Amino acid sequence: MERLIIWAPDGLPEVRPGDDLGVLVGDLLAGEGLAEGDVVVVTSKIVSKAEGRVVAADDREDAVTAETVRVVATRERPGLPPLRIVENRLGLVMAAAGVDASNTPEGTVLLLPQDPDASARRIRAALRARLGVDRLGVVVTDTAGRPWRDALVDIAIGAAGIQVVDDLRGGVDAHGRPLSVTVTAVVDEVASASELVRGKATGRAVAVVRGLARFVGDADGPGARALVRPSADDLFREGSAEAYARGYATGLADGLSAGAPGGPDPVRATPAP
Amino acid sequence: MERLIIWAPDGLPEVRPGDDLGVLVGDLLAGEGLAEGDVVVVTSKIVSKAEGRVVAADDREDAVTAETVRVVATRERPGLPPLRIVENRLGLVMAAAGVDASNTPEGTVLLLPQDPDASARRIRAALRARLGVDRLGVVVTDTAGRPWRDALVDIAIGAAGIQVVDDLRGGVDAHGRPLSVTVTAVVDEVASASELVRGKATGRAVAVVRGLARFVGDADGPGARALVRPSADDLFREGSAEAYARGYATGLADGLSAGAPGGPDPVRATPAP
Repeated sequence: MERLIIWAPDGLPEVRPGDDLGVLVGDLLAGEGLAEGDVVVVTSKIVSKAEGRVVAADDREDAVTAETVRVVATRERPGLPPLRIVENRLGLVMAAAGVDASNTPEGTVLLLPQDPDASARRIRAALRARLGVDRLGVVVTDTAGRPWRDALVDIAIGAAGIQVVDDLRGGVDAHGRPLSVTVTAVVDEVASASELVRGKATGRAVAVVRGLARFVGDADGPGARALVRPSADDLFREGSAEAYARGYATGLADGLSAGAPGGPDPVRATPAP
Repeated sequence: MERLIIWAPDGLPEVRPGDDLGVLVGDLLAGEGLAEGDVVVVTSKIVSKAEGRVVAADDREDAVTAETVRVVATRERPGLPPLRIVENRLGLVMAAAGVDASNTPEGTVLLLPQDPDASARRIRAALRARLGVDRLGVVVTDTAGRPWRDALVDIAIGAAGIQVVDDLRGGVDAHGRPLSVTVTAVVDEVASASELVRGKATGRAVAVVRGLARFVGDADGPGARALVRPSADDLFREGSAEAYARGYATGLADGLSAGAPGGPDPVRATPAP
């Protein structure tokens, strides 16, 4: 019977800009007896640190703005800057664009890696050479909120050497009917599983997942970017209040232009929250 | 060093309406040597079957309508009924309200359990007695899509005996700054982790997760319902197109009433997609 075993070795030193993460993680895992088919999970936080994505930012909000490709939704917060949920350079829709101000020195913030799939490929190449394991997967994680559910889960923002999805389309159930659940986001589930072992407070940034060899191959593969749904295809591409306000403004303009001149009631013209 | 071990025993018989799932799962796990702090993960599919949530439905769409509390978003699909993403009785926002037409006999569909947290509590009580384990968690899972990302992950829709979240609010990082990531959805991560072992095609509906004893307690706890964000608090409570259309209609009416009588251009009055 298949077992999944996940562990998070202690002992990674504090990662600094310019560090070679392949070497640091290789050192950490050298004594762990990695096997063919294992998956190494690394937080984006240490990838960003190694890649020098720590930037001076007296105002975190400026960094968020710089990382934003498209504002998806915002919410005012008493005594705080507005919450901004945005699409960032990587196509990820995240609060604050994924910019992180914890576990960085005062006056600095941490941006997400420039290309986390490329980071995963580099780490994978280094670990394969160092550990003598050919079939090795690498996943780079980040922590994200989601609509409709409170609290956060880890997702994959980078991947190499591991299938990002398990595609069962074309399969049938025991009654011969097409499987209704057809494509599983394997690397997101790997990210979430590893978070349970790493924890947020422990500072352990690397985990090993054993038991998923069926998803691990020789090629780097398309990477976690393949999981990003293009916003044009997304039923929730825009926050509800933002979409309402845009519709209201268009409808109001159309209504006014269809009628005679005369301004709208400025109170009623304010979109409902 | 902490390890997470997850396995999915083979051998659960086909579950039928009226079956006592506590007995069936107890039989399955009797030889597995469960220990204090273990978590048993069960798919909602077998919970629904045991609880007789198989209903005759020549038209799955009728069943979806009956389970719907609030339509969140819809999309036309060529040659198929429209995709409906709705809030169901459980507060869950899901495609087709979580109604499942796979792995059920022709002409029937499977509804979600009436109260999956109550189901988890009942299964937990039965397993504690049967297996002689006091500190035992139970999680009931389902598979769900999510905005912004393709493919599906398992989430928790029922829970007992396990903390649903890991709340780190008030904690500080190594630099003394408040942790920016503060509440982790533990049971959702458990659901996703267990899916990697159960798989969709194998039919294994039960998994055991060992290594999370820190989250497992004596009390049943609030259940997975606690993870449901009230729709009034949700920035994505309504699909973008639906919110736009509602805003447009209101704006148009306001514009027309502010102007003189005269109907809108019927073409321009159609909201943008």
